[in-house]
Amino acid sequence: MPFDPLQTRLIRRLGIANPVFGFAHDAAAVAAITNAGGFGVLGATRHTPEEIERDLAWIRTQVGKKPFGVNLVLPTGMPETDNRAAIEAQLPEAHRAFVRGLQEKYAVPAASQAGMRSRFVRSEESAQAQLEVVMRSDVNMLACGIGSPLEVIERAKATGKLVLALVGSPKHARNALSKPIDILVAQGYDAGAHTGSIGTFSLVPQIVDVAGDVPVLAAGGVATGRHLLAALAMGAQGVWMGTAWLTTAEHHMHPVVRDKLLAARSEDTVISRADSGKTLRQIRSAWSDEWAAPGAPSPLKMPLQDILVGDLLGAIDEHEVQALMHHPAGQSIGYFNEVRTVADVMDGIVAEARTRLERLADENEVTTATATS
Amino acid sequence: MPFDPLQTRLIRRLGIANPVFGFAHDAAAVAAITNAGGFGVLGATRHTPEEIERDLAWIRTQVGKKPFGVNLVLPTGMPETDNRAAIEAQLPEAHRAFVRGLQEKYAVPAASQAGMRSRFVRSEESAQAQLEVVMRSDVNMLACGIGSPLEVIERAKATGKLVLALVGSPKHARNALSKPIDILVAQGYDAGAHTGSIGTFSLVPQIVDVAGDVPVLAAGGVATGRHLLAALAMGAQGVWMGTAWLTTAEHHMHPVVRDKLLAARSEDTVISRADSGKTLRQIRSAWSDEWAAPGAPSPLKMPLQDILVGDLLGAIDEHEVQALMHHPAGQSIGYFNEVRTVADVMDGIVAEARTRLERLADENEVTTATATS
Repeated sequence: MPFDPLQTRLIRRLGIANPVFGFAHDAAAVAAITNAGGFGVLGATRHTPEEIERDLAWIRTQVGKKPFGVNLVLPTGMPETDNRAAIEAQLPEAHRAFVRGLQEKYAVPAASQAGMRSRFVRSEESAQAQLEVVMRSDVNMLACGIGSPLEVIERAKATGKLVLALVGSPKHARNALSKPIDILVAQGYDAGAHTGSIGTFSLVPQIVDVAGDVPVLAAGGVATGRHLLAALAMGAQGVWMGTAWLTTAEHHMHPVVRDKLLAARSEDTVISRADSGKTLRQIRSAWSDEWAAPGAPSPLKMPLQDILVGDLLGAIDEHEVQALMHHPAGQSIGYFNEVRTVADVMDGIVAEARTRLERLADENEVTTATATS
Repeated sequence: MPFDPLQTRLIRRLGIANPVFGFAHDAAAVAAITNAGGFGVLGATRHTPEEIERDLAWIRTQVGKKPFGVNLVLPTGMPETDNRAAIEAQLPEAHRAFVRGLQEKYAVPAASQAGMRSRFVRSEESAQAQLEVVMRSDVNMLACGIGSPLEVIERAKATGKLVLALVGSPKHARNALSKPIDILVAQGYDAGAHTGSIGTFSLVPQIVDVAGDVPVLAAGGVATGRHLLAALAMGAQGVWMGTAWLTTAEHHMHPVVRDKLLAARSEDTVISRADSGKTLRQIRSAWSDEWAAPGAPSPLKMPLQDILVGDLLGAIDEHEVQALMHHPAGQSIGYFNEVRTVADVMDGIVAEARTRLERLADENEVTTATATS
């Protein structure tokens, strides 16, 4: 067997071909990631329980017995029930006026019933309903944040699921490791969506150091086989990628947003709290610019911001208000400039990681013969 | 010759032992880095011409014929001459009042003549005087920013010096590559002091891709041998480290600041413009907190901010006003928790990079015999 640095212990244990975990909100992309030899993970935090049930069942029809996972963010401090009226009563008038101002400035028509994103209010009740569907399903892994309750983790494990936790600092990692976690994802500042302040390169070996025997995946900025090899060099047993799949052929994406993603450079992403109240790295747009402009109100906390802006965000997408359209993306977006299939992206990354190691040897004028002396 | 991924083409060309460039403002640390097999670089932007001349000559007495470099930042748009009075006349009264308020709140005595940091006003004239000293010296390398004029670069090369440019984005790199640059440093968001927005992990392969045959060093977050191996995996031919040396035995450092550096975690650094008008990653302190507090004025541009705060910063250090004392540092600071010698840090990094590669093979249960099959 030739030297293959990509066959990490974790990958052999999971029985998958490639040390690449792929996160996507799109079921077709998730299935394609698993079928390409990786481990697909459906981001379902904003799915209704019915949507989760449908997507998990559909992915299973596509991947057969190959493993895939689901990610739920279970934020603490949410209201107990989906009481939209109670939340709306808490929205400050200045914030409402700012959102009305955006709607007028960009001539955004009202959202239809289907376009109203905030119809699904985050609450303890809705999170519990999402979890029930996941627990009943045959999904192979639950990925969750650091705040996840012990009973959720134990229940997932009791139903034979792996449990993975995303962390952004050694402190987060120690918290997660106090529970029976199977895999840690060290997600750095470079990442799309919710992200901490520590750069991926600075973060990964620190998480490996506190993780002990728990395998670590590197996340945030992973785009090439060089990144994959670098992640393994830093002690990770694989990578976790999200941004890479957004522009693939399989991923459903509005053409306007896809074009923005294909054109974006790494420096065209910004971190904003305007979408949900939590920090969200996304491609820069008039939306992030308006909320960062002098005089703009500071975004509210989750779930208040969700309700404040949800219907407007839904209407922006529904009516294709191009200037305001945007999408979460990490700093790796600069590497993805054309539509490719998931398998092509996966194969390219894996092949590059292998050849990069060989080239490292070549560059140092070491032949196979002398390497064994 | 055994397989040694650390003997990159660049390192062999320079005739040094280790692919580690070390930046420090302290001459003793620079000499120790070169003598430990790396390539020491003196950060001299805030040195007077006399200090530069003295430091470069002293380092030469310590390192013999081994190579070392000097870094000068040559910002554009500086005033022509060291006219402090003209700059002071431009300082807004609200900013002056805020600085006086800080001085009173923290009971900072006035600085002595020696403690007045802003005695050296940045100007075209002073930068020219710094450059003259460097050009006359036998220093082996000039490290400069992207704005450096072509004639400076050509003159440095004509006197036999290597020229290195620090860049934070592909756009910066293309600009630098339009000039006869010998080495590019891809410096990411994770780095100490002046830094861009792209995380090191996201940045390095992008810079390698545009650099062609020009060798690239990875900078920002480098702390361990795993980082060094990861940098090589990403296509870099070495690393550039600054934060690592701040807490070494050789580096002159105020004990209060050293203790703050030793205690700091990666998440204890912040980016502030309050020291110079340019973004400066530093350990968080009452200084950065006060300038980030609601109601604080936005820092002025360079060189106005230099003059606004220079004497107060000098007085803070001179009179040891502990709450306000701080220092530039990158996110790698979390890895450095004890005072070690420069050679110990260097040897540890190099040894870890070598053993990490071996362990990668071990983890995949590949023996030397099967590796050649």
